[in-house]
Amino acid sequence: MTKESTTIDVGEPSTVTKSSSHVVVDGKKKKGFVAAAAGGGAKRGLAIFDFLLRLGAIAVTIGAASVMYTAEETLPFFTQFLQFQAGYDDLPAFQYFVIAVAIVASYLVLSLPFSIIAIIRPLAVAPRLILLIFDTLVVTLNTSAAAAAASIVYLAHNGNQSTNWLPICQQFGDFCQNVSTAVVAASIAILFFIVLIIISAVALKRH
Amino acid sequence: MTKESTTIDVGEPSTVTKSSSHVVVDGKKKKGFVAAAAGGGAKRGLAIFDFLLRLGAIAVTIGAASVMYTAEETLPFFTQFLQFQAGYDDLPAFQYFVIAVAIVASYLVLSLPFSIIAIIRPLAVAPRLILLIFDTLVVTLNTSAAAAAASIVYLAHNGNQSTNWLPICQQFGDFCQNVSTAVVAASIAILFFIVLIIISAVALKRH
Repeated sequence: MTKESTTIDVGEPSTVTKSSSHVVVDGKKKKGFVAAAAGGGAKRGLAIFDFLLRLGAIAVTIGAASVMYTAEETLPFFTQFLQFQAGYDDLPAFQYFVIAVAIVASYLVLSLPFSIIAIIRPLAVAPRLILLIFDTLVVTLNTSAAAAAASIVYLAHNGNQSTNWLPICQQFGDFCQNVSTAVVAASIAILFFIVLIIISAVALKRH
Repeated sequence: MTKESTTIDVGEPSTVTKSSSHVVVDGKKKKGFVAAAAGGGAKRGLAIFDFLLRLGAIAVTIGAASVMYTAEETLPFFTQFLQFQAGYDDLPAFQYFVIAVAIVASYLVLSLPFSIIAIIRPLAVAPRLILLIFDTLVVTLNTSAAAAAASIVYLAHNGNQSTNWLPICQQFGDFCQNVSTAVVAASIAILFFIVLIIISAVALKRH
């Protein structure tokens, strides 16, 4: 596989598209190489889209983690509860959210070099497979963080009569709004990951 | 692709392994066909493993959904709360869990024919790609259900002082235990899905 892709002169990665691929053909197996170059062009397009999606996902996850981390509200008066300050560290689900989403964002930054390799070498299998496997692991981490926090946000908004858990969003409206925003951002990141995994799957398949 | 795989006489799918693959070769391109048959044998092994994992995941998800659905406890006495019965439908996160995990189990049953096609036609790309994409979608559903329920189970066990949400597991011990079991089962299903996705990715990649 690597031998095949090294015979293709890719030139400047950012300027090469499917139509402008410059292929060095050594006389024999010309048809095969041209087909590989055409497939490589389509796969390079996928790889560039993959890279852009990762940049978007980094922005979304960093946003989600930092909004959750900074979500805090101090009330100017005492309420029926003893405390009158709410922060992300008051609820374990929100702490888990901050840690998990920060790990997801870090992973995405670390995955960028592999995405760049996939742009330069669109026919290479290894970076694609590595990205797909780790994307799959990380999307479950991201989803678990979003769902665990969403579950608590729902409770904070609506409370639960059966268990006598009272809603806290009446008191801590701004806090709840920030936390909800963070959960929505993390849910959007899940969509990014699903598209990334499908891109990797399509790029992996044989022609 | 299909033309290539139809030239391979697969015989009885369950008894054919990499070493015993019987290949009909028409004289030319012999080397290429032998390589494809060897790859097909390895991919058939993966496909059989995929099928077995799906059976395991069906058992685990049906178990998780039914344990959660039947989790119920009626106390023989009144407590500090007005109600003295706990069921999965008292908490929206548990209702979501039952619905989501039931959908996951249904999907797994519907995915079995595709897995069987992948065993019969180990070199076919379409069933693999379909399985990978839908597995990815469904694993996020499964993960969100498990995490949302886990978040509430944690709260039921430990309560939360900051928000004045009292633990309910002192009163409803059996209920909490059943619910926790369901969450653990759903988490095991996530692992099954991750392995299934990796299998599909490896099977999709070119030789």
